[in-house]
Amino acid sequence: MFIVMQPAATAAQIQAVCDRVTALGLRTHAISGDLRTAIAITGNPGVIEPTALEEMPGVAEVLVVTKPYKLVSREMKPDTTVIRFPGYAATIGGRDLAIMAGPCGIESREQAMEAAAAVSAAGAHFFRGGAFKPRTSPYSFQGMGLEALKILAEVRERFGMLIITEAVDEHSLELVDEYADMIQLGARNMQNFALLRRAGKARKPVLLKRGLSATLEELLMAAEYIMSEGNYNVALCERGIRTFTDHTRNTLDLSIVPAVQRLSHLPILADPSHGTGKRNKVTPLARASVAVGADGLIIEVHPRPEEALSDGMQSLYPQQFTDLMDEVRQLAPIVGRTVLPALVPAARPEPAMAQAPGR
Amino acid sequence: MFIVMQPAATAAQIQAVCDRVTALGLRTHAISGDLRTAIAITGNPGVIEPTALEEMPGVAEVLVVTKPYKLVSREMKPDTTVIRFPGYAATIGGRDLAIMAGPCGIESREQAMEAAAAVSAAGAHFFRGGAFKPRTSPYSFQGMGLEALKILAEVRERFGMLIITEAVDEHSLELVDEYADMIQLGARNMQNFALLRRAGKARKPVLLKRGLSATLEELLMAAEYIMSEGNYNVALCERGIRTFTDHTRNTLDLSIVPAVQRLSHLPILADPSHGTGKRNKVTPLARASVAVGADGLIIEVHPRPEEALSDGMQSLYPQQFTDLMDEVRQLAPIVGRTVLPALVPAARPEPAMAQAPGR
Amino acid sequence: MFIVMQPAATAAQIQAVCDRVTALGLRTHAISGDLRTAIAITGNPGVIEPTALEEMPGVAEVLVVTKPYKLVSREMKPDTTVIRFPGYAATIGGRDLAIMAGPCGIESREQAMEAAAAVSAAGAHFFRGGAFKPRTSPYSFQGMGLEALKILAEVRERFGMLIITEAVDEHSLELVDEYADMIQLGARNMQNFALLRRAGKARKPVLLKRGLSATLEELLMAAEYIMSEGNYNVALCERGIRTFTDHTRNTLDLSIVPAVQRLSHLPILADPSHGTGKRNKVTPLARASVAVGADGLIIEVHPRPEEALSDGMQSLYPQQFTDLMDEVRQLAPIVGRTVLPALVPAARPEPAMAQAPGR
Amino acid sequence: MFIVMQPAATAAQIQAVCDRVTALGLRTHAISGDLRTAIAITGNPGVIEPTALEEMPGVAEVLVVTKPYKLVSREMKPDTTVIRFPGYAATIGGRDLAIMAGPCGIESREQAMEAAAAVSAAGAHFFRGGAFKPRTSPYSFQGMGLEALKILAEVRERFGMLIITEAVDEHSLELVDEYADMIQLGARNMQNFALLRRAGKARKPVLLKRGLSATLEELLMAAEYIMSEGNYNVALCERGIRTFTDHTRNTLDLSIVPAVQRLSHLPILADPSHGTGKRNKVTPLARASVAVGADGLIIEVHPRPEEALSDGMQSLYPQQFTDLMDEVRQLAPIVGRTVLPALVPAARPEPAMAQAPGR
Repeated sequence: MFIVMQPAATAAQIQAVCDRVTALGLRTHAISGDLRTAIAITGNPGVIEPTALEEMPGVAEVLVVTKPYKLVSREMKPDTTVIRFPGYAATIGGRDLAIMAGPCGIESREQAMEAAAAVSAAGAHFFRGGAFKPRTSPYSFQGMGLEALKILAEVRERFGMLIITEAVDEHSLELVDEYADMIQLGARNMQNFALLRRAGKARKPVLLKRGLSATLEELLMAAEYIMSEGNYNVALCERGIRTFTDHTRNTLDLSIVPAVQRLSHLPILADPSHGTGKRNKVTPLARASVAVGADGLIIEVHPRPEEALSDGMQSLYPQQFTDLMDEVRQLAPIVGRTVLPALVPAARPEPAMAQAPGR
Repeated sequence: MFIVMQPAATAAQIQAVCDRVTALGLRTHAISGDLRTAIAITGNPGVIEPTALEEMPGVAEVLVVTKPYKLVSREMKPDTTVIRFPGYAATIGGRDLAIMAGPCGIESREQAMEAAAAVSAAGAHFFRGGAFKPRTSPYSFQGMGLEALKILAEVRERFGMLIITEAVDEHSLELVDEYADMIQLGARNMQNFALLRRAGKARKPVLLKRGLSATLEELLMAAEYIMSEGNYNVALCERGIRTFTDHTRNTLDLSIVPAVQRLSHLPILADPSHGTGKRNKVTPLARASVAVGADGLIIEVHPRPEEALSDGMQSLYPQQFTDLMDEVRQLAPIVGRTVLPALVPAARPEPAMAQAPGR
Repeated sequence: MFIVMQPAATAAQIQAVCDRVTALGLRTHAISGDLRTAIAITGNPGVIEPTALEEMPGVAEVLVVTKPYKLVSREMKPDTTVIRFPGYAATIGGRDLAIMAGPCGIESREQAMEAAAAVSAAGAHFFRGGAFKPRTSPYSFQGMGLEALKILAEVRERFGMLIITEAVDEHSLELVDEYADMIQLGARNMQNFALLRRAGKARKPVLLKRGLSATLEELLMAAEYIMSEGNYNVALCERGIRTFTDHTRNTLDLSIVPAVQRLSHLPILADPSHGTGKRNKVTPLARASVAVGADGLIIEVHPRPEEALSDGMQSLYPQQFTDLMDEVRQLAPIVGRTVLPALVPAARPEPAMAQAPGR
Repeated sequence: MFIVMQPAATAAQIQAVCDRVTALGLRTHAISGDLRTAIAITGNPGVIEPTALEEMPGVAEVLVVTKPYKLVSREMKPDTTVIRFPGYAATIGGRDLAIMAGPCGIESREQAMEAAAAVSAAGAHFFRGGAFKPRTSPYSFQGMGLEALKILAEVRERFGMLIITEAVDEHSLELVDEYADMIQLGARNMQNFALLRRAGKARKPVLLKRGLSATLEELLMAAEYIMSEGNYNVALCERGIRTFTDHTRNTLDLSIVPAVQRLSHLPILADPSHGTGKRNKVTPLARASVAVGADGLIIEVHPRPEEALSDGMQSLYPQQFTDLMDEVRQLAPIVGRTVLPALVPAARPEPAMAQAPGR
């Protein structure tokens, strides 16, 4: 921490700042420049409320240096975390890209199976689908709850895909921890600290989505909450931030991928479906996400998007997802990645797939 | 809802759109312009996923008209809601401005009593102070919990102020509902829908703070969640949004005050402490909040801000709050408001107040 | 400037950084903490490209302390600048609030005179009206140019108001400098550095509007451009920034008013017309602007807003402006301000005023 | 244009709206829903100030449908514009990716030649380098002006690269139009309409960079300004927008690439150097830009970034650019693109290249 004094600060004011800091058990180092004096502080600055000094007479500015994250930090753990799922080949954070796909919400057993057959055939290794839906309106479809979790469990059995689905409160988190393979925490809950702590006690890995207005530091600190409770299997996910733009629902901030990779050992995926909110932009941004170096993708695919009960307009048609996977396989080696082959389900159904309308 | 077709849309494409809409039980009205055709839809458009039609061939744009809020709407209830507290003169949403003040967090019985004595003497009728603190870092002070609630109850008894404090999850909400007079839901939980629903079942009124990136519609829909469960005593609070600026911690968006008042019957307060994050900007923005027409203020005041365990830099010194209240009393009549006189506590202590340093 | 080294930085890396800095003629002060070393730099850091050091091996972060502004700085000139206009009582930055009002654009001699009569009677001392309009579309009304300037000059003669109007390029700036009393530079040109330099050579004071995405520092540096060419009569103007919100056209960031007043001696006005873009929010935000401490207001008033060729929806009806001025006169003393009495024109015409529709 | 009436609007209010609209020569179509009435307007709505009707009694909302752009629109010209340069193989908007590279500013003949040799050898076909620099501070390096243009002309002769450089006002635009092959208009001048009009009269193609807070529509309208004066050779460029994030200098909004390509026939490039402001993020975001479908890249490369007079921290080392070009060549075919082979200069010098430090 550095305290920069005003040019007109008196010696007494400088001394007063130093006295307060040393009273907290820290050391001060005053450096006199041509124009002003700065005071460097060493020791454990965590005991100071960072800005408590800013209003002392003569103080111009307080600069905080030490970042507050510990467990998430690459300084702490240089090797990238690889999340593994016992009994499955798929990983997150390793050489293989993690591809997650499925509908926004589970709407029926038929819809889920049809979607699962499609994304599995195209090459997804994780099946996504909401059982508990956080919706802006209390009158919108809120998800099928436990019934959806049972359908998801059936998808796993039938198609061999790992299941990821969102938990929205303590109750649903317990159920998701029981039924699914990975717990998704949504953007709106990124700073629901009670839920983060609870996820930190879960047995299953957590996919933590970036909040709509979360800084990089806030995202990492949210992961720190989970890890501080003992669950080290955390993957992050960029899903678009809120900006002034109006040509997409959110602005997919792909620069956070290399930024996270520099500061943290946690893997980071991208969600171009929520990140754009528009079907015709999902594929280009999915390609960009792989090219920027993301550890995986999470994509909404619906057998008949125009009938979806939620987020239909951003869901790919199955054929579009299949085409995207072809492109992903071509892109992967350029960024030093591989893509596991498509799964062969125990007994794959052959539902009639809907076709995307011409561009 | 209006569907705007592309200039090159064919008659068959227009018909296909109309057919899909009428199949949902709605009526269509095609209007041919010089350049293109538009289709107006009447009936209950809630049955359509607003954007499901946007990707049909020939469709250029879908415009949604009907707003999704019901219970919060001024169309539904023309008179502004006035929240009353049995046995107390203070109200929220009526002619009297609601003034809430106190420290960010309750740190000790002494600190709470000292702060309460100060803000009570200056004219606050609600005492604020966090028992459960949502903090960005898991390693920061998280609040004294139940112990703080008991201290707050003692403040009420001793000073006659109503108590408002934040709930961060179901457990704390139950306790706050029991000990306090008003439940505060913080910005980071504005779309914690499980918590909103739970607050909708509470007995006490709710102060709902705007999320850092929440639109007006999202704020109103969050209130709708609470009201849809039966709790109609909801007040909103503007506390700053996240923008690109760096001279304040957040940008206090005062224009939302008249915007809410036009669309909704719910009262709306302003929080210039969080809205600016800087002590020297709290008083000017508090004045602006009253002038813009807010129904009240919530202000952080700490007996010794430089020793605060959280948010010290945005807390007013007691004397600064006293001065602010003088200004508020002068401003109120210009916007057609009144300010209740300061309370006379049962037995007011006379602690030595800390003084604000010279500007 | 401070350079913070990574915890794992070697002594050689630290030395290399110090060597590079001292080679530039600066002094270094290495401070070893428990975890890492920081290097404070004294001397004139302007010779270093602030971030050139950030990529050196072992460097974690570079913190810049010294602000780049000089002439705009309150450290340089402690007293607030008061802009005076020879022969007129009105000032900007003094005890009197500067009230500027008039239509967005000058559309005809009749419209201008009618608007001038109205705002003059209500108490404005500056008449605003665009002769050169920067419009988003090349096909929109671009202003009447020189003809409008002549009409404005006639307004000055007839009503005794000072004239302020926008310049958009070198040519129009020369004309505005000749015909008007104050040169307005618009938000879209805030970083048109060629135009800023040209305004720095003008004889008339300049009103510099904040850009839609300008930080406080960028706003001050834009003023620095003007002042560095010798024109010290600069007033700033907050007119709304671009954020994610959609209930107003822009977000009026009133917190910049005290922020400017702390750092700079330049006066700052507020423009709630562009700052909200909605007529029904102009009056509340104008009140808030006075309450926050702005040095004046600039307000769009049109005799018949619904017929305006530009920005009609944010223009007040004359009666609304008259009512606003009554409120401003009541607010002014609370913030230590005065309002000059309304001017008595040489020969005031009595046009039939349009009435605002009921709320 | 649609006008949505309030549920409580009276028949007289509806009639008044229709009357005003028909008085402007347009046709109205009233549609009565269960709850409210909407009025569709056909004819040329350009004659209405879009929002002039919004404040009429009984009006709830006015929805504007027709987009204001004409010449930029893909509806107007379905085929993507391909900008050609007589005598050169390179194009913009065709199958070949347009690769532009060079230092932020031309600092000396030696620096320019060294940079040109490096980027030419790596495969760039356009050389960029500022002669006129728009800088936030009036005290920063402002460019070498005409002298730099002459150096750039020499680069063209010696290396066979096309020259692109920024114009900041009318004077510099004339010079750039004379000396360079393509005129760059910077983000801060995107709505400098006088400059846009002047560029519309230039002989050379224009690269128009998106403003920091420009919407898609504003970007297209800025291009419309240029085209409306007769210069149809316009390419757009995404260079990052201003958001709340702090891990990059700007947020590169890659979703605008497919958005532009859907609405307009103009090519669009990406600038990951300004778009991130950090060297270590340039390469990943450059890959992402190609993958998303951009028509080209503009990249800052400096022989010794740590000595650059501007933007050094975002400039690639020559070797980093060479490595990036290898990746671009691998990515191009996946998005249906090709990359022209590296140029063989008349007489290529062999300067000693600086090496990037280890990551």
